[in-house]
Formats: sequence, structure tokens, C-alpha cells
Amino acid sequence: MKETAVIEGGVTAPGGFRAAGVHCGIKAEKPDLALIVSDRPAAIAGVFTTNRVQAAPVRICREKLAGRTARAIVINSGSANACTGAAGRADAEEIVRVTAELLGVEPAVVFPCSTGTIGRRLPVDKIKAGLELAVGELSAAGGAAAARAIMTTDTVPKQYAVRFEVEGRQLSIGGMAKGAGMIEPNMATMLAFLTTDAPVEAQGLQAAVKRAVDAGFNRISVDGDRSTNDTVLAIANGASGGEVLSPGHTGWPVFCSALEDVSRRLAFEIVRDGEGATRFVTVSVAGAASHADADRAARAVANSLLVKTSWYGGDPNWGRVIDAVGYSGADVDESRVEIAYDGVCAVLGGTAAPGVTQEDLGRVIRRRAFAVEINLHLGNGEAVVYTCDCSEEYVRINSAYMT
Amino acid sequence: MKETAVIEGGVTAPGGFRAAGVHCGIKAEKPDLALIVSDRPAAIAGVFTTNRVQAAPVRICREKLAGRTARAIVINSGSANACTGAAGRADAEEIVRVTAELLGVEPAVVFPCSTGTIGRRLPVDKIKAGLELAVGELSAAGGAAAARAIMTTDTVPKQYAVRFEVEGRQLSIGGMAKGAGMIEPNMATMLAFLTTDAPVEAQGLQAAVKRAVDAGFNRISVDGDRSTNDTVLAIANGASGGEVLSPGHTGWPVFCSALEDVSRRLAFEIVRDGEGATRFVTVSVAGAASHADADRAARAVANSLLVKTSWYGGDPNWGRVIDAVGYSGADVDESRVEIAYDGVCAVLGGTAAPGVTQEDLGRVIRRRAFAVEINLHLGNGEAVVYTCDCSEEYVRINSAYMT
Repeated sequence: MKETAVIEGGVTAPGGFRAAGVHCGIKAEKPDLALIVSDRPAAIAGVFTTNRVQAAPVRICREKLAGRTARAIVINSGSANACTGAAGRADAEEIVRVTAELLGVEPAVVFPCSTGTIGRRLPVDKIKAGLELAVGELSAAGGAAAARAIMTTDTVPKQYAVRFEVEGRQLSIGGMAKGAGMIEPNMATMLAFLTTDAPVEAQGLQAAVKRAVDAGFNRISVDGDRSTNDTVLAIANGASGGEVLSPGHTGWPVFCSALEDVSRRLAFEIVRDGEGATRFVTVSVAGAASHADADRAARAVANSLLVKTSWYGGDPNWGRVIDAVGYSGADVDESRVEIAYDGVCAVLGGTAAPGVTQEDLGRVIRRRAFAVEINLHLGNGEAVVYTCDCSEEYVRINSAYMT
Repeated sequence: MKETAVIEGGVTAPGGFRAAGVHCGIKAEKPDLALIVSDRPAAIAGVFTTNRVQAAPVRICREKLAGRTARAIVINSGSANACTGAAGRADAEEIVRVTAELLGVEPAVVFPCSTGTIGRRLPVDKIKAGLELAVGELSAAGGAAAARAIMTTDTVPKQYAVRFEVEGRQLSIGGMAKGAGMIEPNMATMLAFLTTDAPVEAQGLQAAVKRAVDAGFNRISVDGDRSTNDTVLAIANGASGGEVLSPGHTGWPVFCSALEDVSRRLAFEIVRDGEGATRFVTVSVAGAASHADADRAARAVANSLLVKTSWYGGDPNWGRVIDAVGYSGADVDESRVEIAYDGVCAVLGGTAAPGVTQEDLGRVIRRRAFAVEINLHLGNGEAVVYTCDCSEEYVRINSAYMT
């Protein structure tokens, strides 16, 4: 199996996709409307937020997935179209209708997504005008503009693409994502869009996306808040030609691993751009009584405000880490707990490891990226969560009026 | 049933108690060692952290409770004696032994407590020297000094006392507490000590304390982090004389309600003094499918970093509140959710309440204290959690090296 190679671009890196990003006036100045279009009917798969409160576009996308075919995804930032009731649903449907009309396709193959403030109606007229502009600007080089148009508090656009080979065919997967706060996905995170020119049927694609999301987006957390709008959509248009890839095909593992690679990389970008974040932290738990226990412990550590603020301060305060493990709900025998930072052992048998100084640990914690490795020595359960620290800047960003 | 009256002082307000607070050198300058002594054998009850990682003094107190009798509680701040293994346990036992010797009582009736940084050994020699000093300073006016000596990041000492009447007898309950961070108790919070001169047997006292803690300390949250050292100890020395109070006695409801009052008031003081807190917020949930669901929803809102930072900014961002309710795990029908701020309706039927402006809501949120009232309209489940906002100051305090 050959390595996948990183290539330039994002959602328009694979063949047969065009995209655009424009400013339509939901935000004061920044781009706020993105469009991704496949030049032929494409298989589509999606994974959505598990929040019981769900935005209108999330509900609509879920329903549309039954059709298994997509031609376009229309995404606005600046307003989430969540908690907007029947009126919000009608707004999203109107946007879908206009997009379909402009593209000359059926509304059934147009998928709407929104991100931004909860509880406000979308300015549908502005968006309609913006759609005309966006359709005019659609191009195979438009991925970068689309990635910029879906940003909210993100400080950098996030896109990534890879190329890999299956039986002599060159296939690509591209993707873009946004998300900087309200990030603790549990099925998907914020908005991410994956495109591929590989020929894949919707059912297989759904399984591959689910797996990729579990390995990528579902393993990150910025602040433990799960959004109403989390959505990952993947579309495969088969522009590469050749045999359909499906489970059982020799190229299937290559395709799945490339998809996982793109999902994980975009997820990491979200954590790196976490609101106010200064450090990227990998929290791994091994030796738990079960995988579920390992996940509980890793998430408790990753979401502990005390742990996150100590990381920000470059403070090797492992007491807060073991405290979070202790209240996580995971089975814990205090006297067996082991904690290391990038391999430097801090805690052995539940107490301070002998011969290791605060200075030794401080040197690791003050790195821009480091790992906290926890072993509960109780079983074979393992989990990893990627997260960031919490700085005063996070508070400043989120205490600003109606961000 | 007569009203309970608030009186001056704290743990030494009830008859037959003496206390002291001194500086022994665990901290650089501030008082760090407190002693509470009953002049006669007293009934004792306690409630402790549910964290699976527990400090040595917590484990020791749990065991000692079997004896049901106390004469003294010795408390140090600055170091938690948690994750210190067998050596930490021996340290606590040595402190108990020396305290008992100085007071001329059995070690079995001396209860040790610690609060502060996790993972460090106690400076036992300094504490022993401090104990001699403390015993010399014991007095019936020493409650305030003791309340100061148990502070960590607290900015004010927390004490409270009430007097009430049972069949012509004047009885008192006093208390002191500390806690400003790592506060989401689930059985007890940080350290709180309740004293009473009422004659109560240990078994009844335990039931009354459990109830008071459930209504007070267990309803607060500062940052969602549950400590390894949470402890509430209550001692009843019967200095008032007269008939023993126990369940079934006509005075029992009066006693329990006074104990609840003291527990709730001290808990509120902890929230008001939450690290960096600028607002006191009451989160109430009604109409949930069950009490457990109401509790989940209230805690999710109270612990959401996005919600807490928006409160700090005086931002009526109800979208973040309904988002937290949605991922809380509680049963939620989005279209029934109602949210009000101090009676001003923000959300009706899951969407923005008509005719209410952001300015109307902003006026409430900018108050120093306000209530967020959530009704899920699904059943009869109710819960309330008292919490505070999250400011840049919280991050500053907790990112400082080894707080």
C-alpha cells in the first residue's frame, strides 16, 4: 500500500468540483457564503451533532441524505439558523430552492449548512443576492475562498487534501473545516466538508465517513460545548472514473485510510485554532477497565478548566490531571495511576514519581505541543483526545457581546 | 415554628466550642493551620468527595466516623495531602497524634483535614510547631481566625451562624467554609465545618447533614472540577443541655431547617467568592422528565464555559443556554423549551420570545445576581444549581504556577 501524498488545496483539489466564497452581508465585512458544486451527481454521506437541539439545516440534511445523491452544498457563516422554528426551516428551504434554480439542478440534491449565532433568522434576501454572485464565481480554484467564507471565530482557514493511488488510478480527497469554539463533537464537529473524485457508493461512503469522523473530529475538544450545528458532509463524484470502490475492493482500505487522514488533519487544525489556544495537547489514556472508561477519563482531563488553565500557565500541575481522572466516572485505583508528559514520568503508583523535578516537567508543559499519557493499569481500555489550553483570550472572545 | 435568627460568628458561636487559626509556615505568610475543639465529647457526622482519588485525611476521616465521637478537628491549608501514598497517611496520623497529645484526648476523636496543592508532602515539623501555638490560642472567640486559616484562593473568610429555639431552649449552629476553585461537589464541597451546641446523636446528625449538604453544598458549581479533598464535618456537643434531638422529636424539623440554612448560606458564599467571579447566577430547571434530567440540564448550563463567559460579558446569549440543555443528556423537545431571565421571557417554544429585545435581556444579565429559569415542559422534574460567571481573572488565577 503506497503512502498518501499531501497536495495543495481543499475541496476543489479532487477533480470535478468547483467552489466559491463570497460576502453577502450576514457579517459586516468578511466572506459569509460558500458554495461547493460537483459537476455530476455525487454520492453523499453525513454525520451530525448528537445535541437534542438541532439547527434547521441539520434536520434538513439528515432527511436529504435518504436520497444519497448531491450536486451542491450551500453554507453560510454568521448565523446558525438554530432555534428559529418553522420559519427557520422555511428560510433554509428557500435558500436550497434558489441555489438549485441558479445551478439548474433539483432542490433534492442541494444540501444547506449554517454556522454562527443561535436564535436569529437568516437574512434570506441578502443570501439570495449572494448566491447569484457565488454561482458566477464558481471555479476549480475556489476551494480556498470557500474555506474562508465558512469561518466564524476561526483565525485561519482550514483546508487539506491528499492524493493516493488505487490500481494505477490517481484519486484525491480534499476537505475544509471551520470551528474554534463550542467544540466537543460527538458524531461530528462544527462544519467539515470532504470531497473526493473516487467513485464510491453512498452506503460505503457513509461507513467510511463514520469511521473517519470517529478517528478525527470525534476525538477533539476545545471547550466541552457541543454545538447545535455540527455537520460533516462527504461527497464522492467519481470524476476519476474507473471501478466503484466499496468495502471488499482492494482499494477500499487505501481510500478509508486517506479519508481518515484528511478528517484527523482537519480536526487537528480546529484544535490548533481553538479560541485563544496557545498549546496543542494530546491526552491519551491506556490501561483503563474499558474503552468507554478510557474515553471518560481522557475527556474529563481534556475538558477540565483547571487543567486547561494550568497548561496555559506552563504549570506541570499533575494534581489537577489525576483529580479529573478521579471524578471522570471511570474505574480508578488511585495507587496504580501513572502519568507522564511526553514520556517524562510525573506520577507513579498514584504519587509523585521519585527523582523528577517540577523543572523537568515544566520544560515539557511549556512546549507548544505535548502529550499527557495516563495509564490506569486496570485493563486494556484505550482512548485519545486532542485538545488545547484555555487562556484569558478565550474568555475575552466569548464574553464579547453576541459572538 | 419560630424563625431562625442570624447571629455573629461562625464555628465558635454555639456554646462549648473553642477555635484558633495560626500561621505555621506551609504558606509564606498567611494563616494556614486551624483548630476547632469541643469542650466535651461531641457527636460527629461527615460527607465526603465522591472523587475516586481521595486525599489521605479524607480516607482517615471516613474511618474515624465509625467511632461517632469527636473532640477536635485540625485543618491545614496550602497543601492537600492528596496523592501522597502511605507516607501522606502517616503524616496525617502523626498530626492527629500530636494534636491529641496537646489536647489530652484520644487520637480517635481528632479529625484531620487538608486543602491546597495536590501531590506534595505536608511539612509535618512545621505543623507540629504550629499546633502548640494554636492550642495556646484556642478561644471561644477564635472562630474568625480559624475561618481565615482554612482559606486558599478565597478572597474572604466564610462563616455564618444562626440561633433558634426548641421547647424554650436556645440552640445555635455555626459554620465556616472555604473554596473558590475546583468546585463541583457531589457529596460535599471543599471544606466546611458545622458546629452546634444542640444535643444530637451521631446517626441522626448524619442524616441531617446529608440532607443539608444536598440542599446547599451539592447545589453549587464554580468550575465543574470536583476536588480530591471535599469534606463537610458537623459536630454536635450538646452544650445547650436538655433532651436529645432526634428524628421524631418536635424540635427535629427546626434543627434540620437551621442546619440547611447554614449549609446553603455557606455554599452561596463559596459561589460569590468563586475564583474571578463577578456574578451570582441561579440556574433552575423545571418541567423536566425527571429530577435527574433537571439536574443534568442545570449542571450542563452552569458548567458551560461558553455560557459562563457570556454571563461575564453581560451578553444575553440564550443560544448557548439552550445548546447546553440540548447536549446535557436530559430528554428535550426543542419546540417546548422556555427560558427566562429573572422572569423576563427570552425563549418560548424553542425560539426567541416575540417582543423581547436583547436590551431587555441585557438589563437582567448585567445584574450582579440573576436567575436563569428553564422550563422543559415535559414532566415534573426540578433542580437548581447556584453558580458564577467565568472571567479572565479565573484564567489568571489558575494559570499561575502551582496554585
